[in-house]
Amino acid sequence: MAVNLFAPDPSRIHPVPGVVLGTAEANIRKPDRKDVLVVQLALGTHVAGVFTSNRFAAAPVQVCREHLSKTNDIRAIVVNTGIANAGTGKQGLLDAQETCEKVAEIFNCSATQVLPFSTGVIMEPLPMRRLLHGVEEASNSLSRNNWVQAAQAIMTTDTVPKCFSKIFSVGSSMVTVTGISKGSGMIEPHMATMLGFIATDIGIGTSIIGDVVKMVADASYNRITVDGDTSTNDSFVLIATGRNEADPIESMDDPRFDELLDGLIEIAQKLSQAMVRDGEGATKFITINVEGAKNEAEALKVAYSIAHSPLVKTAFFASDPNLGRILAAVGNAGIADLDYTKVSLWLDDVLVAKNGGRAPEYLEEQGQRVMSQAEITVKVNLGRGDAGETVWTTDLSHDYVSINADYRS
Amino acid sequence: MAVNLFAPDPSRIHPVPGVVLGTAEANIRKPDRKDVLVVQLALGTHVAGVFTSNRFAAAPVQVCREHLSKTNDIRAIVVNTGIANAGTGKQGLLDAQETCEKVAEIFNCSATQVLPFSTGVIMEPLPMRRLLHGVEEASNSLSRNNWVQAAQAIMTTDTVPKCFSKIFSVGSSMVTVTGISKGSGMIEPHMATMLGFIATDIGIGTSIIGDVVKMVADASYNRITVDGDTSTNDSFVLIATGRNEADPIESMDDPRFDELLDGLIEIAQKLSQAMVRDGEGATKFITINVEGAKNEAEALKVAYSIAHSPLVKTAFFASDPNLGRILAAVGNAGIADLDYTKVSLWLDDVLVAKNGGRAPEYLEEQGQRVMSQAEITVKVNLGRGDAGETVWTTDLSHDYVSINADYRS
Repeated sequence: MAVNLFAPDPSRIHPVPGVVLGTAEANIRKPDRKDVLVVQLALGTHVAGVFTSNRFAAAPVQVCREHLSKTNDIRAIVVNTGIANAGTGKQGLLDAQETCEKVAEIFNCSATQVLPFSTGVIMEPLPMRRLLHGVEEASNSLSRNNWVQAAQAIMTTDTVPKCFSKIFSVGSSMVTVTGISKGSGMIEPHMATMLGFIATDIGIGTSIIGDVVKMVADASYNRITVDGDTSTNDSFVLIATGRNEADPIESMDDPRFDELLDGLIEIAQKLSQAMVRDGEGATKFITINVEGAKNEAEALKVAYSIAHSPLVKTAFFASDPNLGRILAAVGNAGIADLDYTKVSLWLDDVLVAKNGGRAPEYLEEQGQRVMSQAEITVKVNLGRGDAGETVWTTDLSHDYVSINADYRS
Repeated sequence: MAVNLFAPDPSRIHPVPGVVLGTAEANIRKPDRKDVLVVQLALGTHVAGVFTSNRFAAAPVQVCREHLSKTNDIRAIVVNTGIANAGTGKQGLLDAQETCEKVAEIFNCSATQVLPFSTGVIMEPLPMRRLLHGVEEASNSLSRNNWVQAAQAIMTTDTVPKCFSKIFSVGSSMVTVTGISKGSGMIEPHMATMLGFIATDIGIGTSIIGDVVKMVADASYNRITVDGDTSTNDSFVLIATGRNEADPIESMDDPRFDELLDGLIEIAQKLSQAMVRDGEGATKFITINVEGAKNEAEALKVAYSIAHSPLVKTAFFASDPNLGRILAAVGNAGIADLDYTKVSLWLDDVLVAKNGGRAPEYLEEQGQRVMSQAEITVKVNLGRGDAGETVWTTDLSHDYVSINADYRS
């Protein structure tokens, strides 16, 4: 059902020097599926992450934050699916810590150099015996060529594994960026039951890697939504192994910085858009482009008001050009002094509304033509200023309800 | 499909002295259904209203606001369904004004003493010839006993007409309150494609009637949500004809004020809860009760975060006690300093979570039992203070998607 999204071709996924990955079937919640991932990172790797804004942050998120507050020299990542280890109180924290200790023992590092991640059902305890056994098994299958298997191991309701990769020039060197993501529901601006890991072999200094991960997230993971829910486990991690021949990038003033940032953002956008394309029940991929706003915050408000409206989303599902619903969502965005007579609306290249009402030249057949497509761009001009923002979302279908009504069964 | 909601028994609906109502089948958008309502109000009636916060306020809402800014001495109300007259630009305003002029001509009052209302599809023009003909026809069938017909005439996707009535003592007099509402989608705190009209025969002074209508709305219409969308046409109007033998209530210090307010709120709550019970695709009626908040705004934020979460709503539809989703919605409410270890959660009388995690004594069978009911109360204690709020909502079902994907067809 995913919208123009296909399984990655392993021959086009480039290993990242300094990163090896292993997976296991640990039967965390369901049998016969990869559900544990262990990633070992070479000495000297720097890591930074951004995490959920949900106040019920899962235990592994709390442990990640704590470990990253102590060091960027992370040596391993461990992920389980099936159970989110969220809403699990003190025992959840102890379980996440015990998992890190197990990994640290295997890789001969300290537990604070391990970052744990979990995704799945909330408020159920981790089956620790099976998980630790899976960690051991995964650690026995480490390979630099396991990126696609890793993408499979972190899937929950995903229908397609998400893995993108690119080799490009940064200064005079060729640099590799490869990443994986999971997530198709609870997808929201501040990330949802969504995990993303992107690795590059060029070094990124500890003084800037925390800012870089935020800049990349704000151009990708923080611009997508499926259902407006922010999960307890959202995490996006940037890994820089420094194994490239090129000198590390230590400052944003480095002339190579923009080349690197563009490459990272390109992979992050592909991964995050892949989550939308694989959004629960998605039949359409919608780009919402708001311009003419006073500032970016305002443009985002309007974009998300449209992207979150169940009425707009069901109209996309029905391919029904019931476009007044989009105007209603614009009016519902909480901009108190919005002058609706200055608002224009396009569907792809079709002008639907101007001066706050239906454009005289608009014909329903034109709207119908665009609404029937699998990929649609909604453009709104607020007529108030020069700022703009783009977000990506899906329609709301019967399958969304089915998937979420049946998730646990 | 409505949840414990039944058609009104006309013998239990009390006419309100000073109010006569007439309906017509004007074929506004679909044939063979009542789609025009005209209400004539006796000389001396005072009226106040609250209207949508959507910046794309429909033309009739703009005209209502303008007329009420000039006078509370309203003599007539005119409503059409089928087309919302929203997103219709200048022509929409002219159409709403022309409708008022037609009514004013029939009832021999000024056009500013007429309030117009429309509900239905956005961004399509009103068929004025048919509408004006319908207005004339409706005006020829005026009767004090037409409340249930009026409730039918304002329905769109509603499956059950909504009309409640009560006679109760205010001071030493018996007072009548009767009201009607429509709406089952786009239902949100600041009211949605929702119309509500409540009439009483006791007089309410012009110095307080504007505050009274807000107090009543805040205890009823502003505490419900189906899908989080605020429509362009939401309107709630309070009518006080002053035809009761009792002296008008001119001040909130009048010892009879609280008795009257309680009676008005009781009818408004029944009407607004009826909209939730008849919510698009609803199979469950959910009461969300947040306590232990620092203030009411915070309690409302948490209540709406739960009520708007598609994941929580689909879990209710599935009768699946996947209750971690409720904790995630609490964490997602935007309370930056929420200490999740102080949060408790009940489902009816079953303690599900405490100290931020699953309660040790909680058994899944208990959650399953409550989730299987048609009416469920979710109680959350934030452990931060003494404020509390209650909102009412529905589940999210396959039928919600069907209704909204097919609404125009």
